[in-house]
Amino acid sequence: MPYIKIELTREDVTREKKQQLIKGVTNLIMEVLNKDPLLTHVVIQEIDTDNWGYNNEQVSVMREQGISSDIKKA
Amino acid sequence: MPYIKIELTREDVTREKKQQLIKGVTNLIMEVLNKDPLLTHVVIQEIDTDNWGYNNEQVSVMREQGISSDIKKA
Amino acid sequence: MPYIKIELTREDVTREKKQQLIKGVTNLIMEVLNKDPLLTHVVIQEIDTDNWGYNNEQVSVMREQGISSDIKKA
Amino acid sequence: MPYIKIELTREDVTREKKQQLIKGVTNLIMEVLNKDPLLTHVVIQEIDTDNWGYNNEQVSVMREQGISSDIKKA
Amino acid sequence: MPYIKIELTREDVTREKKQQLIKGVTNLIMEVLNKDPLLTHVVIQEIDTDNWGYNNEQVSVMREQGISSDIKKA
Amino acid sequence: MPYIKIELTREDVTREKKQQLIKGVTNLIMEVLNKDPLLTHVVIQEIDTDNWGYNNEQVSVMREQGISSDIKKA
Repeated sequence: MPYIKIELTREDVTREKKQQLIKGVTNLIMEVLNKDPLLTHVVIQEIDTDNWGYNNEQVSVMREQGISSDIKKA
Repeated sequence: MPYIKIELTREDVTREKKQQLIKGVTNLIMEVLNKDPLLTHVVIQEIDTDNWGYNNEQVSVMREQGISSDIKKA
Repeated sequence: MPYIKIELTREDVTREKKQQLIKGVTNLIMEVLNKDPLLTHVVIQEIDTDNWGYNNEQVSVMREQGISSDIKKA
Repeated sequence: MPYIKIELTREDVTREKKQQLIKGVTNLIMEVLNKDPLLTHVVIQEIDTDNWGYNNEQVSVMREQGISSDIKKA
Repeated sequence: MPYIKIELTREDVTREKKQQLIKGVTNLIMEVLNKDPLLTHVVIQEIDTDNWGYNNEQVSVMREQGISSDIKKA
Repeated sequence: MPYIKIELTREDVTREKKQQLIKGVTNLIMEVLNKDPLLTHVVIQEIDTDNWGYNNEQVSVMREQGISSDIKKA
């Protein structure tokens, strides 16, 4: 019964990574909430980088400036 | 004033079927809630089968295995 | 597999009307798209009238002014 | 922390207009709610005109009939 | 940058379980997509059982009939 | 025709601030996209601080630790 929507920018997310997200979320829901996986729906929505903004800037502009959204290395 | 979002997989939903969904939902809202249809917005969002999962599996993988989401025949 | 979200203002929508919305949408999806009802999830989200606006006005203010969102009578 | 989703029909919204929407919403959130812009995410979702309906009609059909959604001139 | 919405029925989800969902999803996004956790927002939305339906039935009615959404035991 | 959803934490957002958000967004849509305000719907969704997480932490826990989401002062 849970429904989970994952929204992220359209930047080379492979079919395998999508599969990992679907299985990872479904298993988390099983572990934490004990829900029947048949009832758990996971939807991944990819958004063009022109269409996402944070920190008052368009993501496509950040990418042109070399700013990534990756984990910062220590 | 109601806003209705219909999310489904992108699998040959024709323009006519979309029209049927829009009119069917708008009429349902008129009958049950008595709402002015000018204020009822219906949005259909098609999702690639790689991007939807249920039962702990990607829909595109299910389709390759011949598993449909259609009504089961008796 | 379809997921349908119905958003409307919180204004005396009874349990019976919610049941009618759920069954009405599920049957529409069966008729138009032939989808297994086990996979069709319908979620109704009620929004306080202070939290919805259209026509550049808060719905709660419209209600105080006697403006409804009902079907206009001929 | 606010997350804002803007859904509109896919009808020639330029990159510059998307930038204006992102900055306009982020600044509004800063002014009204005093929120750190780093935490404000704005997502624009463009919907095909076949996939949006209001007033019990598909937007693509309205466009064929010459009906726009623009501001009415006085 | 990912935004994740988890929708589930309002049925005794404790603060600790919500914390587990937030951390579980954020870590999954880090592992699969390498995204900076500062940019990953997770929102949990609880829906009254009168307001969710699947299998053409209201969840509150299913609960009265003793039908759960839990994992089926072998 | 645009539909805008604003999601934020439930932390003392007054009716007046909600009115400002509704008018601010509607006017932005008029200025940038020239859309008829009658067709612009703005929905504000308040989320309990237990139900929102970012930076791998529940917002309610951050608040207990004195961490705000406000604009950082220079």
